[in-house]
Amino acid sequence: MSRHLQLGRGGEFDRLRRIFARLGPGGGRDLGDDCASIWVGGRADGTTLVLSIDLSVEGVHFRTDWLSFREIGWRATAAALSDLAAEAAEPIGVLVSLGVPGNRQRRSGNAAPATEIMAGVGAAARSVGASVLGGDLVRSARYLVDVCVVGWTAHPVRRNGARPGHGIWVTGVLGGAALALARLKRGRRLARSLFRRYAAPEPRITAGRWLAGHGAVAMIDVSDGLVADAGHLAAASGVRLDIELERIPCWPGVTPRAAVASGEEFELLVALPPSFDAARGFHRATGLPLTRIGRCARGRGVRLTRAGRPVAAPRGFDHFPAG
Amino acid sequence: MSRHLQLGRGGEFDRLRRIFARLGPGGGRDLGDDCASIWVGGRADGTTLVLSIDLSVEGVHFRTDWLSFREIGWRATAAALSDLAAEAAEPIGVLVSLGVPGNRQRRSGNAAPATEIMAGVGAAARSVGASVLGGDLVRSARYLVDVCVVGWTAHPVRRNGARPGHGIWVTGVLGGAALALARLKRGRRLARSLFRRYAAPEPRITAGRWLAGHGAVAMIDVSDGLVADAGHLAAASGVRLDIELERIPCWPGVTPRAAVASGEEFELLVALPPSFDAARGFHRATGLPLTRIGRCARGRGVRLTRAGRPVAAPRGFDHFPAG
Repeated sequence: MSRHLQLGRGGEFDRLRRIFARLGPGGGRDLGDDCASIWVGGRADGTTLVLSIDLSVEGVHFRTDWLSFREIGWRATAAALSDLAAEAAEPIGVLVSLGVPGNRQRRSGNAAPATEIMAGVGAAARSVGASVLGGDLVRSARYLVDVCVVGWTAHPVRRNGARPGHGIWVTGVLGGAALALARLKRGRRLARSLFRRYAAPEPRITAGRWLAGHGAVAMIDVSDGLVADAGHLAAASGVRLDIELERIPCWPGVTPRAAVASGEEFELLVALPPSFDAARGFHRATGLPLTRIGRCARGRGVRLTRAGRPVAAPRGFDHFPAG
Repeated sequence: MSRHLQLGRGGEFDRLRRIFARLGPGGGRDLGDDCASIWVGGRADGTTLVLSIDLSVEGVHFRTDWLSFREIGWRATAAALSDLAAEAAEPIGVLVSLGVPGNRQRRSGNAAPATEIMAGVGAAARSVGASVLGGDLVRSARYLVDVCVVGWTAHPVRRNGARPGHGIWVTGVLGGAALALARLKRGRRLARSLFRRYAAPEPRITAGRWLAGHGAVAMIDVSDGLVADAGHLAAASGVRLDIELERIPCWPGVTPRAAVASGEEFELLVALPPSFDAARGFHRATGLPLTRIGRCARGRGVRLTRAGRPVAAPRGFDHFPAG
């Protein structure tokens, strides 16, 4: 959900590349990152504002028979806030555009969907100390939630700072989002923890800021799938990422191969200096595991290995398949 | 297109009021204005960032048989920038979410619609010195363009500063947007100037900043129709607005009554001190007329008169009619 101006592989990226090439000089700054940044204030006491926008559309990003409207609002907002987490930014607020079908305003006995969606948006924002700054509401054929997030940081972490020798780490465990999606598609019931993982992801704001404070040199959130996002980080940094499949921290019942293809995980993939060894301190601060899954090398792209042998990379998902 | 958190009359406003009431303390700041504002920087050299978000949806705000994709992008962006104009803010940049139907990517011989829309977005942004900071692109059933604008100002002009005795003025001439829409609906051809007025509105950034520099105490852009927007300004300021129909500057062929109901005009309605008499200077600076159409009085709401006699106010348009 956060493929803003990412320049990687796939049909959607090719499309974005064409689009932003049209904007000419001055347009499309910071093309390599999910977030745009604006420097404000004086030299001594200035700060960097970071912004990102993230559109969730019914039938593409969510289904109203899988999630409540409140969960739809939370999830769309958490997805947008995840971009701020990867920048090590502190959220300030969100602006939200809602599209709501004119003839589906109310389910019997429930509050209006738009009200419920906004309750979820507000709860997700408050969970990271942000507030709802503004919004727009229009009639549309399908539900849609577009969230623009605003945050700030004294020292943003971009994607382009990884160098050969840096360690590659990931927060949390991967694969839950794909597993949940697969079961929902098959009409299967989900265990409570798995459903929560899918319906109410927690943006890794605290984790991102902790990592920035402990030497993170490049960071990206896992939204397209670990391999795809590793590819974005590798491209921006001009390095190759060597990732060992057997090191991938997996959701119970998920294979490493499925875990590295799982999108919308909203964990953080981070490059840290070779000397970094504070994963326990990270766990104490955030409650999350932090796992070293590989390293940066000279070259380009992502090299996946299992027991030291190269294996083909699965493709991340893409809303606009090429061709 | 810019009814962000406006608290006025009508179904949509009632809906928004319910929604943002749900957000609780800390949520929904600056409810009275189209723009959210964030104070950044130190006490001495700080500035106010202003943000607004504006969603345009195919079939509601535009039709692809009336406007080119480039015009659709321009118009959506101009509508969002109009909110910054009313705040007397200087635009910095825009973030844009695009929804594009998966099966309508390309018209024969033309560039991809998403590319064309972004070309229009970029041109509108550049016309006021702003750039495209970021974006998102997803597949959706219908085209949609959601534009989040970011600007700054040392001295924002809000809606709540009008007091009894202040003059009420409007920039430009009104009614062209409604006239164009009526003719398009009837399948009639439009004169070039009228079509441009509809397809390529110019956000009144320069006008807004000039007015702020010449004493503007309250300002709003005309997006819901002059009477409706006057109602928002009156409500925010706690005054009554007395407006004389015969003073309304009208597009050729449009009656004053139609002109004050015409939405998406993107002119500025502004309260100025009684002593203000620099309309000629405004014209020299902006090329636009500035017309005194009434004054603020004690009370509430909007009182329309013709030859000194009260007349009933036409309703502005509302995407979500009550009932």
